[in-house]
Amino acid sequence: MTDNTNPQRTELSALGEFGLISHLTTGLKTFHKSTLKGVGDDAAVIDNGDEVTLVSKDLLVEGVHFDLTYTPLRHLGYKAAVVNISDIVAMNGTPTQMLVGISVSNRFSVEALDELYAGIRLACERYKVDLVGGDTTSSVSGLFLSITVIGRAKKEEVVYRNTAREHDLICVSGDLGGAYIGLLLLEREKQVYKANPQMQPELEGNDYVLERQLKPEARVDVLEKLRLAGIKPTAMIDISDGLASEVLHIAKDSGLGCRIYENKIPIDVVTADIAAEFKLDPTTAAMNGGEDYELLFTVDVNDFEKVKDLKGIHIIGHMLEKAEGEYLISNGGSLYPIEAQGFDHMKVD
Amino acid sequence: MTDNTNPQRTELSALGEFGLISHLTTGLKTFHKSTLKGVGDDAAVIDNGDEVTLVSKDLLVEGVHFDLTYTPLRHLGYKAAVVNISDIVAMNGTPTQMLVGISVSNRFSVEALDELYAGIRLACERYKVDLVGGDTTSSVSGLFLSITVIGRAKKEEVVYRNTAREHDLICVSGDLGGAYIGLLLLEREKQVYKANPQMQPELEGNDYVLERQLKPEARVDVLEKLRLAGIKPTAMIDISDGLASEVLHIAKDSGLGCRIYENKIPIDVVTADIAAEFKLDPTTAAMNGGEDYELLFTVDVNDFEKVKDLKGIHIIGHMLEKAEGEYLISNGGSLYPIEAQGFDHMKVD
Repeated sequence: MTDNTNPQRTELSALGEFGLISHLTTGLKTFHKSTLKGVGDDAAVIDNGDEVTLVSKDLLVEGVHFDLTYTPLRHLGYKAAVVNISDIVAMNGTPTQMLVGISVSNRFSVEALDELYAGIRLACERYKVDLVGGDTTSSVSGLFLSITVIGRAKKEEVVYRNTAREHDLICVSGDLGGAYIGLLLLEREKQVYKANPQMQPELEGNDYVLERQLKPEARVDVLEKLRLAGIKPTAMIDISDGLASEVLHIAKDSGLGCRIYENKIPIDVVTADIAAEFKLDPTTAAMNGGEDYELLFTVDVNDFEKVKDLKGIHIIGHMLEKAEGEYLISNGGSLYPIEAQGFDHMKVD
Repeated sequence: MTDNTNPQRTELSALGEFGLISHLTTGLKTFHKSTLKGVGDDAAVIDNGDEVTLVSKDLLVEGVHFDLTYTPLRHLGYKAAVVNISDIVAMNGTPTQMLVGISVSNRFSVEALDELYAGIRLACERYKVDLVGGDTTSSVSGLFLSITVIGRAKKEEVVYRNTAREHDLICVSGDLGGAYIGLLLLEREKQVYKANPQMQPELEGNDYVLERQLKPEARVDVLEKLRLAGIKPTAMIDISDGLASEVLHIAKDSGLGCRIYENKIPIDVVTADIAAEFKLDPTTAAMNGGEDYELLFTVDVNDFEKVKDLKGIHIIGHMLEKAEGEYLISNGGSLYPIEAQGFDHMKVD
């Protein structure tokens, strides 16, 4: 029969997720002038005249992106929808429609899918997104979710990740690291539960970080705030893989260097407290954790006065010329190179 | 920890694929006037002024939709792209952009993904579709493909499946049943191979049906032919699940009945010959097989003269009022109720 083996075998982990995507998509030709942006941002951008259509797509795979032993299906549905909505928001667009693909084994019942869909519908109502299609099919094992979100924006309003400029201020919304700390807590309680199923989980008082992990939100409110303040970011991305990975995307794609000040990185007190319990530096959680779905963006240095007092927005650094490299300036004043050590789902294997 | 069990448990197979989608999507609210069509056609339709954006999404799951023991990865990539492109074509639209989501276990190498992508790229070049994004991630086991295709059409050109009218002629492009017969052949050779791996597969002379199964095409050429002939279909769908299932979609969604004449159903001589080998009625292969990706459409009875001599287009029946029901008129003149027994991937479990 067909021989799918190949004399040369390169493991997927050798390239990593970003390396693999780059490898698979190099040299792509485009046929349509309407394709304003293809691979390489939070969403594709398609020209429709005055407006553009934004399209984003993410996969969520059981055992890789979520663990159903501690993720309620309703939360999973909500989160799956939100992380895709967040990609449209990160382009400064308005999410409008969604398509949902679900592949499930017969381990799941109709009632289980109802729960999953209840979460998806809740997110659609919360963000005013129309669920317009999709596909539901069986799998041999496990649950796979594939969500596509469509959005729109005026052409001149779209914000890419590769358009930061030298001297721009680097800003972030909300606080970071909480989602990762929430995940650590859930993983710890899972181990306790496996060792002794009679034990009750110790999750009280940790609601904030659990919610950050289980029920993230897309920061449409931040876009609104920036608009009201008369600020258009020069570049933007959402933080799905940790601050380090995302700031490197902006810097490298814009052909620039950057500085991030450790003492400016916003970290919630609950996050810091629980990080200490785990003997983990909260800066590490913020830099390399991921799944916070906050917005990381750059603004013109002349917008400093407009941005400095905006509630929930933090200026954490600035862009420099490329030769300056990308560094974190620690509380002690030392320079540490910023390296992407974020969630690399290709390494989970 | 979290309790995902439910006192009531309804098996997914109790609803079937269409029943499940309908169950999960009932009562959906829409917030945007731009949502012209949501769930329930080959693609969603989104208003952009004079034009619309069409969006379609399909999942392909290893062990459910394809078997890698006889499906070369390059063919799989091509087919996965084409079946999605076909959904846009079935709306009378032009496919323009594509997003590809791939989830793979570490059983696959970079070279294997290169093969898969080579097939996807080939389809994109053949159909002039821009690959604009997606997601690549690991899975615990198996290969999952999730493809989203974007298309466009002038608003007045879009053809839905629920707009057939009484007395319309029912037409189909190409010939039917070949893809299913090709699948039977491949399955048979797989069993022979499992029994004795030294045996060479007997696939010679069967290229036509193997190609129908492994390398289907989207019928953009049929749309062009209809345009040149001055025919706009009144309703249209692509044949992914077999003629029976698709004609029922058009009839039921349009609130009509229909008659299909067995002796008018186009079946290639190779398909008929191999069906005989399998002691299978070729009409059954056409009605219930699926994956031919031909276009099934209705035209106004006044277009009879325009359509009757179009090469590769066959008039196979007509629409009637609802009370007349949906029947196949056999070669012997008997009436058989048309029932959807097509590929129901929910029953694969």
